[in-house]
Amino acid sequence: MSAASRAKRNNPELEITVLEKTEDVSYSACGMPYNIADPSKNIEELVVRSAGAFREKQGINLLTGHTAETIDPANRLVSGTTSEGETFSFDYDDLLIATGGSSIIPDIPGSDLPGVKALKSLDDGRKIKAYLEEHQVKNVVIIGMGYIGLEMCEALRARGIHVSMAKPNPRLLPWMENDLAQMVQKELEDNGVQLHLGMQVDSIQAADGKLQVTGPDSVIDADMVLFAIGIQPNSALAQSAGLSLGPDNAIAVDRMMKTSHDHIYAAGDCADAYHVVTGEKAWVPLALRANRAGWAVADNVLGGKNQLQGIAGTAVFKVFELQVARTGLNMKQAADAGFDPVQVVIKSRSRAHVYPGGKDVFVNMVGDQKSGRLLGAQMVGKESVAHRINAAAVALHAQMTVALFCQTDLSYAPPFGPVWDPLLTAANQLLKKLG
Amino acid sequence: MSAASRAKRNNPELEITVLEKTEDVSYSACGMPYNIADPSKNIEELVVRSAGAFREKQGINLLTGHTAETIDPANRLVSGTTSEGETFSFDYDDLLIATGGSSIIPDIPGSDLPGVKALKSLDDGRKIKAYLEEHQVKNVVIIGMGYIGLEMCEALRARGIHVSMAKPNPRLLPWMENDLAQMVQKELEDNGVQLHLGMQVDSIQAADGKLQVTGPDSVIDADMVLFAIGIQPNSALAQSAGLSLGPDNAIAVDRMMKTSHDHIYAAGDCADAYHVVTGEKAWVPLALRANRAGWAVADNVLGGKNQLQGIAGTAVFKVFELQVARTGLNMKQAADAGFDPVQVVIKSRSRAHVYPGGKDVFVNMVGDQKSGRLLGAQMVGKESVAHRINAAAVALHAQMTVALFCQTDLSYAPPFGPVWDPLLTAANQLLKKLG
Repeated sequence: MSAASRAKRNNPELEITVLEKTEDVSYSACGMPYNIADPSKNIEELVVRSAGAFREKQGINLLTGHTAETIDPANRLVSGTTSEGETFSFDYDDLLIATGGSSIIPDIPGSDLPGVKALKSLDDGRKIKAYLEEHQVKNVVIIGMGYIGLEMCEALRARGIHVSMAKPNPRLLPWMENDLAQMVQKELEDNGVQLHLGMQVDSIQAADGKLQVTGPDSVIDADMVLFAIGIQPNSALAQSAGLSLGPDNAIAVDRMMKTSHDHIYAAGDCADAYHVVTGEKAWVPLALRANRAGWAVADNVLGGKNQLQGIAGTAVFKVFELQVARTGLNMKQAADAGFDPVQVVIKSRSRAHVYPGGKDVFVNMVGDQKSGRLLGAQMVGKESVAHRINAAAVALHAQMTVALFCQTDLSYAPPFGPVWDPLLTAANQLLKKLG
Repeated sequence: MSAASRAKRNNPELEITVLEKTEDVSYSACGMPYNIADPSKNIEELVVRSAGAFREKQGINLLTGHTAETIDPANRLVSGTTSEGETFSFDYDDLLIATGGSSIIPDIPGSDLPGVKALKSLDDGRKIKAYLEEHQVKNVVIIGMGYIGLEMCEALRARGIHVSMAKPNPRLLPWMENDLAQMVQKELEDNGVQLHLGMQVDSIQAADGKLQVTGPDSVIDADMVLFAIGIQPNSALAQSAGLSLGPDNAIAVDRMMKTSHDHIYAAGDCADAYHVVTGEKAWVPLALRANRAGWAVADNVLGGKNQLQGIAGTAVFKVFELQVARTGLNMKQAADAGFDPVQVVIKSRSRAHVYPGGKDVFVNMVGDQKSGRLLGAQMVGKESVAHRINAAAVALHAQMTVALFCQTDLSYAPPFGPVWDPLLTAANQLLKKLG
């Protein structure tokens, strides 16, 4: 919708048809956990703009309940079926595939039971919220520990629900440096979340109106189960039309969001991106990139040359009082990309010691021994972390060395940090290690 | 002291003598307003390391009460007088001038009255705190509106003291974009600070144990007066030794902190710096640069090649609940430096609209019409501003264009901001304006 809106705004003569499988367009998906946390809030508040507004105010031919099923690139045709079972077919000059992603649901017995949920679409959110309201949900088991799962811990605990998390990997957040991951684990445990790390889930069983999440050695009782393993790109439509796929089977796009086929673009969680650190393709489905990619498509179908530099993989999420942030590569990603990575972990504070109320800030920073480049950073802390990470993100876009990052003139005043920003303390130590 | 400590740590054989005029070394000058705010806190808590610790634990020959009065570069001699009136003379292989800055005290009648203060040194802080404790201070007039004056407003109001601020310029913060300065003005007024903008202060008079701050048309009663006009570099010693001075009469140094004379370095508030945006010299006396410069001198006297890239002029301060941040150039500075500047002012939010508790964030961003470069940013807001500014600061170090900054992958989650960070919203609008 961001592509459609921008294109129509920039050229009101353009005829735009949007085929949307569901009835929902333009809602804050990222806001769902915070809405679910609060029983007094209507989930429909997350709708940013209604389908009617797109049709009537913006003049976009928005067709909801229209599932696109085949693309014929040679004849520039998209065909599919409506929710009423009617078939349709549209020709196009330019096509944008914005099919998004969907939750990974493991193929285990019981994954389709009522009370077993995942959270990706607004309709998922509606169902979870309704289920919580209609049932006496006292225990929820979250399977997997993706961002949404971690955010949902807080949302469910806020409603007084007991939460257990289970995942096969014995490490909480395998992508995260261990000392920092320990902080996240402690925050979860301090807030009463029961962690079952290293638990393989074999099945979910219904018994006496309850659910049982069952592994080889243990069973966890639940009133509701939430899959939060992660998402996968909805690229089957593109794949069957012969379009090239990239990492994680996301639709491969160039810097102008063009797919392997003329006149077909892809944007959003279904499409890949260039990573600014590696220069290689990566699939990091996050909201800012999706918006930006939509805008780029709008510009480019109108004859522009909006080329996106790429992503740094910056992400932040809140786990109770803890802010968890990352940008760029971790040690493993850096090694896999052919760098010779070195890392440091430091502990600093969110405020100067002379100013009351400061919190611990942990920084992990990764640099390249060969080039001296800054490759990535991770931070956890109860204050300031979510925005501090951006200094490192910008440095990654600029392909800065650690030495140059050490020179950056970051803000200082006692209420807001030590003289040396935690990122600078980490960079100074990393520089020594890089020699 | 940061230079002395680092040099001694890196080469314990090095003989280091420090000549300090006062009895105080190594204290958190920036912490003084927050300490003064709290009568229960002893101001000596601001001492980071005692003179004794430098002498005994670090083996630095620290001589307090030693005022350096002349430098003889040809014979490599520093001479002066102790607080007991004895003369001294030391020869040196390498000399570091770290004389700092001092408060600007206007030459008006009454500026030397008891009860008329300024805040720069720890001893200034002691005197202010003692004066507040020993006198019935109900009204303070602050003359000038430098960072310290603004921070002192909050400190004094926290003690229940009525505060008036007076300055000749009718604009509150002339360096700040007007819409943003209005936010600061409102915050001061909302917190009961009485502003006398455009008031020339001709004299301060003592009457009946009170003070009267007197202008051509008005008089403000006070129990204490605080000058907060700003600071000036203590460069007289360097100047009389024939060393070159830079902007604002700060001691001119190269990227290795060398002055115009061999074997003489300068660092801290007395010395100038290269500005990373203009490439020209600037004098921006702030703590991070001072520390960094001290480290560079330590490295360089030991044969290293620690070259500092320069400053971006990043600064942040707290005015009651408001965070005020800047980096780089404002419109006037940009025009003066030969750029063709264009600016935008935008209003955004500190959190996504779906997440409760968000605050307004105002961003002013300046770009160059000719090169497309990002030149500077200013932000005010009650949340997140102090750390968000760093993304722009790093971009200035990297000499990024506005177009490239628009592409940066900044963090997003509803508790921490909108999908488009306020800086990105400003950059997107500025990019349009740059054409």
